[in-house]
Amino acid sequence: MRDFLPQEMQRRKYIFSVIESVFQKYGFLPLETPSMEMLSTLTGKYGDEGDQLMFRVLNSGDFLKDISAEDVSAGAKKISPRIAEKALRYDLTIPFARVVAGNQHALHFPFRRYQIQPVWRADRPQKGRYREFYQCDADVVGSDSLILEAELAAIYAEVFALLGIDDISICLNSRKILAGIAEVLGVPERLTELTIALDKLDKIGTEGVQKELLEKNFSENQVQQLFAMEVLFQTKVDISPEESLSFVQPLLKDSETGIAGVKELQSVVENLQALAPEALSKIRLDFTLARGLNYYTGTIFEVRIHSVKMGSIGGGGRYDDLTGMFGLKGMSGVGISFGADRIYDVMEELNLFPHSIQSPVKVLIASLDTTVRPENLKLLSRLRKAGISAEIYPDDKKLPKQFEYAEKKQIPFFVFQGSTELESGVLQVKNLNTGVQQACTFEILSEMILAHT
Amino acid sequence: MRDFLPQEMQRRKYIFSVIESVFQKYGFLPLETPSMEMLSTLTGKYGDEGDQLMFRVLNSGDFLKDISAEDVSAGAKKISPRIAEKALRYDLTIPFARVVAGNQHALHFPFRRYQIQPVWRADRPQKGRYREFYQCDADVVGSDSLILEAELAAIYAEVFALLGIDDISICLNSRKILAGIAEVLGVPERLTELTIALDKLDKIGTEGVQKELLEKNFSENQVQQLFAMEVLFQTKVDISPEESLSFVQPLLKDSETGIAGVKELQSVVENLQALAPEALSKIRLDFTLARGLNYYTGTIFEVRIHSVKMGSIGGGGRYDDLTGMFGLKGMSGVGISFGADRIYDVMEELNLFPHSIQSPVKVLIASLDTTVRPENLKLLSRLRKAGISAEIYPDDKKLPKQFEYAEKKQIPFFVFQGSTELESGVLQVKNLNTGVQQACTFEILSEMILAHT
Repeated sequence: MRDFLPQEMQRRKYIFSVIESVFQKYGFLPLETPSMEMLSTLTGKYGDEGDQLMFRVLNSGDFLKDISAEDVSAGAKKISPRIAEKALRYDLTIPFARVVAGNQHALHFPFRRYQIQPVWRADRPQKGRYREFYQCDADVVGSDSLILEAELAAIYAEVFALLGIDDISICLNSRKILAGIAEVLGVPERLTELTIALDKLDKIGTEGVQKELLEKNFSENQVQQLFAMEVLFQTKVDISPEESLSFVQPLLKDSETGIAGVKELQSVVENLQALAPEALSKIRLDFTLARGLNYYTGTIFEVRIHSVKMGSIGGGGRYDDLTGMFGLKGMSGVGISFGADRIYDVMEELNLFPHSIQSPVKVLIASLDTTVRPENLKLLSRLRKAGISAEIYPDDKKLPKQFEYAEKKQIPFFVFQGSTELESGVLQVKNLNTGVQQACTFEILSEMILAHT
Repeated sequence: MRDFLPQEMQRRKYIFSVIESVFQKYGFLPLETPSMEMLSTLTGKYGDEGDQLMFRVLNSGDFLKDISAEDVSAGAKKISPRIAEKALRYDLTIPFARVVAGNQHALHFPFRRYQIQPVWRADRPQKGRYREFYQCDADVVGSDSLILEAELAAIYAEVFALLGIDDISICLNSRKILAGIAEVLGVPERLTELTIALDKLDKIGTEGVQKELLEKNFSENQVQQLFAMEVLFQTKVDISPEESLSFVQPLLKDSETGIAGVKELQSVVENLQALAPEALSKIRLDFTLARGLNYYTGTIFEVRIHSVKMGSIGGGGRYDDLTGMFGLKGMSGVGISFGADRIYDVMEELNLFPHSIQSPVKVLIASLDTTVRPENLKLLSRLRKAGISAEIYPDDKKLPKQFEYAEKKQIPFFVFQGSTELESGVLQVKNLNTGVQQACTFEILSEMILAHT
């Protein structure tokens, strides 16, 4: 796990603030849940891998009280839920579902919430994969309107445009189209196997997928029929969403579910055309996109960056009954997530962080002898009252040492006010970016700082 | 542990943003550390109670691998560090000290950092005490200048003034004055016992403290001498810091350390007089203040609220050698902490949250038949482009239902644009606060929203 020093923190905060400001503009309100959940809330929701990667919190006090030597010999897996009844949050969606079900009478539906919090996974750390990382989620629960899909796609487009990450595709699919493909192939009951194989297209290519399907006893004929549907495998071609849909529609004409999926995506694209036409050029339909998670039932989102080697930097989808497991049935929800830590890595690699987020502190006042200290503290107070972030060097060190501190902390203005300056009512100001030093009044200094920001 | 729904979240975020903006104006930069630390970093730093209240994280995988039945019979306390090598952050100060020592060549000293993150304690929850709560800390490390004490006191005064919490005292003491008292009583080696007893003054009163000291074998004469120093026990009287110091100085005249403490506090008050004279009326010297923690070596801070029954809502102090335990010797540091969760409780009890933080969403556009949907989505887009937080009701429900949603979410403007309005180029706008409905243009609507904010 990582410490974040100030420079990195300011850049991280910049990403969060851009995402949060867009969430808020779209009517989403903040929500937070505790870092720990009851183990029973989390287990079984993320598959076997998820259960294994969950960080469990040891019970307080004498956690061995009711544990016998025999229990211990049954092994770690058996004993773990008895000595550790809580676990750290693994994602933001399941805790959100718990909160919605538990507060259904206090919330106003359709309920729009955003949540920006860390999650924890005991994974092997590697580039773009951390044991503690932030998710930034926006979800709407309690409506099946396809306006919402368009709004979420527009949020993706707007956030990445604001961050200057242009080289992305916002990929869309519908679980119903995947189901349609399985139906057309005559194996509606094998949807999961089919999508698991298709989901690997990026990694193992078409040949790999074909091999896997044959190994799983799909017939040669089925595999041939699948790969004859060329539009499914054309995600990298510059093809508009409308064209994609017009190509796939005839292929799915015998599947009611498949056609429903096509109509839904059509509607999403139409809504987006009215809501955020500038986003349309980023939209790509990818009919093999599945994102693994079984709870998606409608639209599926994934954001990919082309110029940086990195997994997806965002994803989400619609789930018809997420809160059902917590006792609130029939609530349709749709949501997206931003992978803030990966976005950070992308922006660093592409050198996209604006220079202005580096130096929030604008002025360092030099520390001189104690006779002028009260006046320098008053100057400091005056700057801060004007809303300017400022410091005084606190120690009686030589001026070059103080100057070096300002340079290293990238403070742009170094201000010196000794007895001579106090008599003449001016300040000595050195601009560390230009190297120019000048005598000026407080008002001129304020103007220079404003112009610099 | 607690879920925070939107209304509570917006109020919490308001508190954090006020604190953070002041930290930044005073030149502090953000830093974050991981939620988990190695157990060895944390244990032994917070006393026995701290070690017990720490949440420990079970090792991943087969945590019983090297554990025998015999090990288990040795009990939970013995086995715990072997099956749980990590623990959740218990405060922000120790992780900060670790980061400073580990990054000493990358940081620029004196290093000012702020940190706003949750900490965890397996305590019994009660009012003002939670198992997961946020600390908001500002520390400077690498300088022993007493300007810094004045800056931190000024931060306390400014934050609480901005939050509207007026009824506070920013209490100051110096560990050196406590040591001076012990010296004057002729028991310099019994400083810790003395301060532990004095620290209970609020809870058990003067008689209780006297009793405890006698039980601990302080002599009758010593106890009498102590309580004859009336200024020590006058914190509730309206007495200026200068007066307090002038009263205590002659009492400590035979203790070099005590006089050094008096001079330091004098200097802090003088610096504050120049830096933030408006803060002085909140400053109270309390010569019995100790705040338990043994690592304070100089000034000690505590913020108390008078009108609400609540422990301290802020505290801190100077420690001469905090990073020493991580191998970086001789770095003096001073810091303060805000108890954000308690501040929340205080503001709620005193009804201090501004009304404006309730409704960030300004407009709800009514959903009508699909023929006008594209135009309504365009209107939505136009509002957001103007920086206005807005929503469209996504479902085809009856207007009263949509209206009810706006009311419940406290969205102030309900906007209706059907085919009649589209023809005449106006919008029907209902102000939910005044109940007035009017036909107006987009520009007039924007102005009304601006005026409302």
